[in-house]
Amino acid sequence: MFVHNKRLQYTVRVSETNPGLANLMLEQFGGPQGELAAAMRYFTQALSEDDPGRKDMLLDIATEELSHLEIIGNIVALLNKGAKGRLAEAVEEEAEIYRGISGGGNDSHTTQVLYGAGTPLTNSAGVPWTAAYIDTIGDPTCDLRSNIAAEARAKIIYERLINATPDPGVRDALTFLMTREVAHQRSFEKALYAISPNFPPGKLPPDPRFADTYFNMSQGEGDKRGPWNNDGFEYISDRDRQSAVDGGDGGASVQLRKDELATLDKLIHRTQSDPNSNPVTGADIGRGVTGGKSVAGRPS
Amino acid sequence: MFVHNKRLQYTVRVSETNPGLANLMLEQFGGPQGELAAAMRYFTQALSEDDPGRKDMLLDIATEELSHLEIIGNIVALLNKGAKGRLAEAVEEEAEIYRGISGGGNDSHTTQVLYGAGTPLTNSAGVPWTAAYIDTIGDPTCDLRSNIAAEARAKIIYERLINATPDPGVRDALTFLMTREVAHQRSFEKALYAISPNFPPGKLPPDPRFADTYFNMSQGEGDKRGPWNNDGFEYISDRDRQSAVDGGDGGASVQLRKDELATLDKLIHRTQSDPNSNPVTGADIGRGVTGGKSVAGRPS
Amino acid sequence: MFVHNKRLQYTVRVSETNPGLANLMLEQFGGPQGELAAAMRYFTQALSEDDPGRKDMLLDIATEELSHLEIIGNIVALLNKGAKGRLAEAVEEEAEIYRGISGGGNDSHTTQVLYGAGTPLTNSAGVPWTAAYIDTIGDPTCDLRSNIAAEARAKIIYERLINATPDPGVRDALTFLMTREVAHQRSFEKALYAISPNFPPGKLPPDPRFADTYFNMSQGEGDKRGPWNNDGFEYISDRDRQSAVDGGDGGASVQLRKDELATLDKLIHRTQSDPNSNPVTGADIGRGVTGGKSVAGRPS
Amino acid sequence: MFVHNKRLQYTVRVSETNPGLANLMLEQFGGPQGELAAAMRYFTQALSEDDPGRKDMLLDIATEELSHLEIIGNIVALLNKGAKGRLAEAVEEEAEIYRGISGGGNDSHTTQVLYGAGTPLTNSAGVPWTAAYIDTIGDPTCDLRSNIAAEARAKIIYERLINATPDPGVRDALTFLMTREVAHQRSFEKALYAISPNFPPGKLPPDPRFADTYFNMSQGEGDKRGPWNNDGFEYISDRDRQSAVDGGDGGASVQLRKDELATLDKLIHRTQSDPNSNPVTGADIGRGVTGGKSVAGRPS
Amino acid sequence: MFVHNKRLQYTVRVSETNPGLANLMLEQFGGPQGELAAAMRYFTQALSEDDPGRKDMLLDIATEELSHLEIIGNIVALLNKGAKGRLAEAVEEEAEIYRGISGGGNDSHTTQVLYGAGTPLTNSAGVPWTAAYIDTIGDPTCDLRSNIAAEARAKIIYERLINATPDPGVRDALTFLMTREVAHQRSFEKALYAISPNFPPGKLPPDPRFADTYFNMSQGEGDKRGPWNNDGFEYISDRDRQSAVDGGDGGASVQLRKDELATLDKLIHRTQSDPNSNPVTGADIGRGVTGGKSVAGRPS
Amino acid sequence: MFVHNKRLQYTVRVSETNPGLANLMLEQFGGPQGELAAAMRYFTQALSEDDPGRKDMLLDIATEELSHLEIIGNIVALLNKGAKGRLAEAVEEEAEIYRGISGGGNDSHTTQVLYGAGTPLTNSAGVPWTAAYIDTIGDPTCDLRSNIAAEARAKIIYERLINATPDPGVRDALTFLMTREVAHQRSFEKALYAISPNFPPGKLPPDPRFADTYFNMSQGEGDKRGPWNNDGFEYISDRDRQSAVDGGDGGASVQLRKDELATLDKLIHRTQSDPNSNPVTGADIGRGVTGGKSVAGRPS
Repeated sequence: MFVHNKRLQYTVRVSETNPGLANLMLEQFGGPQGELAAAMRYFTQALSEDDPGRKDMLLDIATEELSHLEIIGNIVALLNKGAKGRLAEAVEEEAEIYRGISGGGNDSHTTQVLYGAGTPLTNSAGVPWTAAYIDTIGDPTCDLRSNIAAEARAKIIYERLINATPDPGVRDALTFLMTREVAHQRSFEKALYAISPNFPPGKLPPDPRFADTYFNMSQGEGDKRGPWNNDGFEYISDRDRQSAVDGGDGGASVQLRKDELATLDKLIHRTQSDPNSNPVTGADIGRGVTGGKSVAGRPS
Repeated sequence: MFVHNKRLQYTVRVSETNPGLANLMLEQFGGPQGELAAAMRYFTQALSEDDPGRKDMLLDIATEELSHLEIIGNIVALLNKGAKGRLAEAVEEEAEIYRGISGGGNDSHTTQVLYGAGTPLTNSAGVPWTAAYIDTIGDPTCDLRSNIAAEARAKIIYERLINATPDPGVRDALTFLMTREVAHQRSFEKALYAISPNFPPGKLPPDPRFADTYFNMSQGEGDKRGPWNNDGFEYISDRDRQSAVDGGDGGASVQLRKDELATLDKLIHRTQSDPNSNPVTGADIGRGVTGGKSVAGRPS
Repeated sequence: MFVHNKRLQYTVRVSETNPGLANLMLEQFGGPQGELAAAMRYFTQALSEDDPGRKDMLLDIATEELSHLEIIGNIVALLNKGAKGRLAEAVEEEAEIYRGISGGGNDSHTTQVLYGAGTPLTNSAGVPWTAAYIDTIGDPTCDLRSNIAAEARAKIIYERLINATPDPGVRDALTFLMTREVAHQRSFEKALYAISPNFPPGKLPPDPRFADTYFNMSQGEGDKRGPWNNDGFEYISDRDRQSAVDGGDGGASVQLRKDELATLDKLIHRTQSDPNSNPVTGADIGRGVTGGKSVAGRPS
Repeated sequence: MFVHNKRLQYTVRVSETNPGLANLMLEQFGGPQGELAAAMRYFTQALSEDDPGRKDMLLDIATEELSHLEIIGNIVALLNKGAKGRLAEAVEEEAEIYRGISGGGNDSHTTQVLYGAGTPLTNSAGVPWTAAYIDTIGDPTCDLRSNIAAEARAKIIYERLINATPDPGVRDALTFLMTREVAHQRSFEKALYAISPNFPPGKLPPDPRFADTYFNMSQGEGDKRGPWNNDGFEYISDRDRQSAVDGGDGGASVQLRKDELATLDKLIHRTQSDPNSNPVTGADIGRGVTGGKSVAGRPS
Repeated sequence: MFVHNKRLQYTVRVSETNPGLANLMLEQFGGPQGELAAAMRYFTQALSEDDPGRKDMLLDIATEELSHLEIIGNIVALLNKGAKGRLAEAVEEEAEIYRGISGGGNDSHTTQVLYGAGTPLTNSAGVPWTAAYIDTIGDPTCDLRSNIAAEARAKIIYERLINATPDPGVRDALTFLMTREVAHQRSFEKALYAISPNFPPGKLPPDPRFADTYFNMSQGEGDKRGPWNNDGFEYISDRDRQSAVDGGDGGASVQLRKDELATLDKLIHRTQSDPNSNPVTGADIGRGVTGGKSVAGRPS
Repeated sequence: MFVHNKRLQYTVRVSETNPGLANLMLEQFGGPQGELAAAMRYFTQALSEDDPGRKDMLLDIATEELSHLEIIGNIVALLNKGAKGRLAEAVEEEAEIYRGISGGGNDSHTTQVLYGAGTPLTNSAGVPWTAAYIDTIGDPTCDLRSNIAAEARAKIIYERLINATPDPGVRDALTFLMTREVAHQRSFEKALYAISPNFPPGKLPPDPRFADTYFNMSQGEGDKRGPWNNDGFEYISDRDRQSAVDGGDGGASVQLRKDELATLDKLIHRTQSDPNSNPVTGADIGRGVTGGKSVAGRPS
């Protein structure tokens, strides 16, 4: 069960209102790398987890992320506190209000008109949060790797926001949030490597014929070697050895039943193209040739 | 520049048509862990990458993933080859066709009616692919971690599909695809650790006051310790030490300009609630009390 | 700050696993009327609320909804507990597993293959949760009405799930959740009517010329009168009195600058259609008429 | 059947073109509280409604909302009339056009380039309209409450647009549209209360043990009492009385079959974490420690 | 202005209820090729159109599509009429209801539980309608081509539904709807070719160096010639003549300012990879090698 | 199989960085008319195509579109090259960075903060690419028409971007891309008309009673005739001849089983509205009338 304590995990002090800055902050409120995504990623993993240690850890961190969602949400709400009253009470004349909401240089016009200068679960472009951001698949060695990556990404978005935030109080709170992502990443790393072995993930073994191969698919000036295709990898540049690597013909075939074949033949016949035709087309007519004159063969 | 060779990277041999199985396979065609997501994740990273080695690797693997998209797409198309003709030519009576498309037990009815038993870029539930699945953020240590996790997830989805696929030819091709995910994960691991240091990601240092803290936010029977909160972490269970960790009051404040304050006050006053009232509500009326009698206090 | 207590708000006892039933339950986990939508609706309102009583109430109920999300999530996870191991360990042969995941008659195939029989934030059709479900706009009399409606809808979805759930333990927990929606609706009703006046919402008065009018836009057999268009409404059926109600010409006009007009004229002239032509079209050619013969006028 | 009369329901007079203002207006054309959402909400309800009076009312209002969609769409089209020709005919030099479309301060660049300064069904941030905005669930007491709330929200968005619109002709038309929302809300209110009883919605009774309870889930400075948790509610602050309210242990359990248990055990064993380990992790290596030296225990 | 006449454009007679068939029909109600998409495609074009003939035609057809939306919506509602009461009144026992909604073999479980067996604006897989389906861009020769294609697609979806619909009354109404798509396609064809010239669309001429070229990008067994790359096209198979066709080096370059270059260099240096390293990676550790031993070079 | 050649199909030369212009270019990278949509439209068609000529053509053009995606992606990446380093290295002070990312006048703030000034698969408003943009349905005469329309639309978007792009190198590359759309449209036209007949699409014939009818659904000042409703069409303006065109009553009926009827009757009775009531409503109370006085009949 979740309970709530009215004190924030970290005190928020905003110097002055700024709906444009509020809009940027939404990136970590309702954006793909934001706190709702983090909380829901770990919470959905915790629910199905059967390992008691990991389950506990996931609940601990999911809960903390909800508390972070509250912090960033408070920052947004406070930065919007001036805009909130302006439209509702209409204390300025319309032209001035119009300039105020359209002149911010970012999407704060949507935040203000549609959401009343509140805290919508969108990113900074106004795109609503979607669970498509969550990559939980229910395998612990995968999900922990996803968590490690997610924490790393969230750390960087906070870093960018700090770099773009003039307000010292906001920077201070963002630094706390950024720091916690680093700590969480460390915990998830520990949890991943406490499963042994954890690579390759899952149970089915890779096919040894193709497990150590590196296909040099992109060729030309700029080809490079590095540890990702050196020792431990067979580096294959020969185009002939890149296709049909199973030794077959590289085709795709299916056994059709007789009735399926007959039906398919009907369809193929009904819609077949005549490769030897040179038909008059809509584009031919559309180039301005009218009436009864054939335009076939006149390239544009 | 991309060019195309008509031979597949791996030969596909399907035993018999099966639109239900085709529908499952869509998971790796247009699903979140599928090949389009993989190709586009690496391709978008390659475009902005300035490190020559990583750029080359990302293009190599992005190109291979496009070739995998082609393989899984061919599997879907072949498994659907029987269904494709049936609806178009209507060689059976309607009731039989209806049973055929609705009796599959999964979403193949949509695949057949809407997409003509083709290869739509949806997952197995019919949800269209979205770039929201792609987590590229333009920082190499983050993006490589995202790639490592994505390869691990894709490996597992292939494993589940193999486990649920009776067709040996399909299993064979899926095993190739699964194996390549393992090889790619290894390459991305090498590339990540060829950047030194790579942790923490980015440039801004974490705040040392909060970098080694583990907050035991979820408490009760089931609390566990493990390497994710043991050595190297300060484990904090005291609820009082979990809130307002900066030493402030845990509040949220903003400096409002005089005019902002005045406007906000108007708004607050206009919409204030009377805590001492006990108003008749719509629910009260809706419970069936009519006319002039107060229904307050009558719990449902 | 949110904290977590390992005891659920309500004990969950599931009789037997059933991935099909788990799939139905997702409706209230990641569906539009589900608990995440509820929690986030109230939480986003709480963050911007300046009235102390309402802010407190919104936090109380948002927190409880998170605890409900946990309950319904546990139900889903437990109903899926059997399916979770099957695919991962592949203890049955493939054909049997295929039948198991495709024969459920609903979308549990996606839940199992893509999400590992976990608890994805989707509805029962596999559509990912989106913040587009949340209708918070930052005006208290609107948001409270939205909350009242949302609680009513959630009550009904629970009712339908109870009616379709054979498992007594699941029914018991669902009844608790359904009951709480009723209690929450009552609280939101009280909070709405504790604002006085609360109708019409907002500050700008309606135009008295059109505030009491009911336009009978749909006419024919089936026209009915009722309290929604009787006393207090002027009922207008005359089609002439339904259009251009301002007394104007019902047109749409704009003042264009001279240069705008000139540019627009160019565009209009360049793309104008000749109403007196009878052009040969692509459809004409496509009906099989070839070469130079005009097919105009031959209806299909 | 719908038919169309070329006169608008309300005459539209726009003073001058303004693509930035056009962009704001999209909020009520293709936004979540806009006229398409309104029309489709009522139209989908009307189709399934069996009560003759409500069916008629829903069709009346749905039809009027389509006429409102036409009004707001005309406003958008006229405000964009200058921008429409400029890009198509390219009468200015490129740098000037670039400044023109990027300097508006809102998302009109997308409207102009992608939609040709037309009337796309997006909100003012360019997010495409989605049926996820529609909350029809097919129960009349719920759907009418949803309609009441939706009309209230739409009224407020119009109010904000009026406050931000300098053009008197646009303000005039917006005031008509705003007024009609108020009238519609009144009709829906009448229709809701013409069903008796209408609370609680549906048929299943709430569990009396939990129907009058208010859980004080959020505690701390700021706790308030009000009519939403006073008379008629039992106010529960004791944390122990908030969890496992059924009197059980607050746990979550399921009866597993023997084979399910065996499979699950395999999975648990295969992926178990070692709580007593202190493994070297990727983050350890990533901090720059190379070769054979253990880095465990070195906090960052 | 839209007005509504209670008689449908076409009489609907449904033989018996069938929620599974209702679910299929949703394809043309809220699906991508369905009637809402059609109506909104033409309506959005009409609003911005300045050619009086086309504007009138677009309004005529948009209005008819709304009337078709009503027809298909009535079909869905009637097919669901039996399911509508069942869940709401719960006249059967739960197990039977569960079988009823999950045994349909398609997504009717979602339609029933979430939408109360109504008429949701989703496709047959339950995916909510989105304005992303609408391809209006505000250029008449493009939009008319889009309309022609859309009518063709809608015709085929109706054909598939007819082929899969056993109910004669439903087939009859679907045949009317299918027929009208053919008539509309013809009108749009006439309107396209009444603009002369209409190809190429727009105003800017193509670059004559590349306008008649066909690049044979996909090579191998299966290469074919046809009218699409024969007369009027230069057919280029030589891979060297396919890249850098402008005669440049096929590179991508930008002029950076000095300060940009300096900053970028910092970034490149900070995140550069060491191509000569062979680092120990997370995957190495994850394979089970512990402590101080390098695992580099041990392929999995 | 796809392979990659490091030389672009067309050399890209960008004069100077400009994140605002980069943001506009996204329209053709991850927008609805962009290159990913084109590549995936043709690729998904190719996979299921059984006609050898069309299959080859679709693969040729799909592959070329991927190469175009690479060109436009390089343009975006280069235009962003200055912004990429700035945020990551934070070489300016925060206030200056904030102005830099928010002052662009379009959505480049999102591109920079969330995507690190990379190449996200979004349109210029930041909306993630979705497969809902792809209209492949698996019928060749439809899909080719869709392709013709798609190429026309893409041509126009490139034209608008060229008109708004001051950078000559970018204009040059865009002109190449625009030109290729024209060439592709011509190929698809040839391929469509090489199928004979291709109109009407599909196999089922239209109902001759309704195939040549034009319904004048929108009436009033502005009614026009043109080739789209002249010769070959019967033009029907009489409202009575527009409804119930089958000669029926224009109603909608279904045969219900006895038990269905009984259940439905229960539902209707339980939720029926009383048309003769004049109930007190929530709006009445909300207007400020308290206590026991009826407010019915008092219009607002």
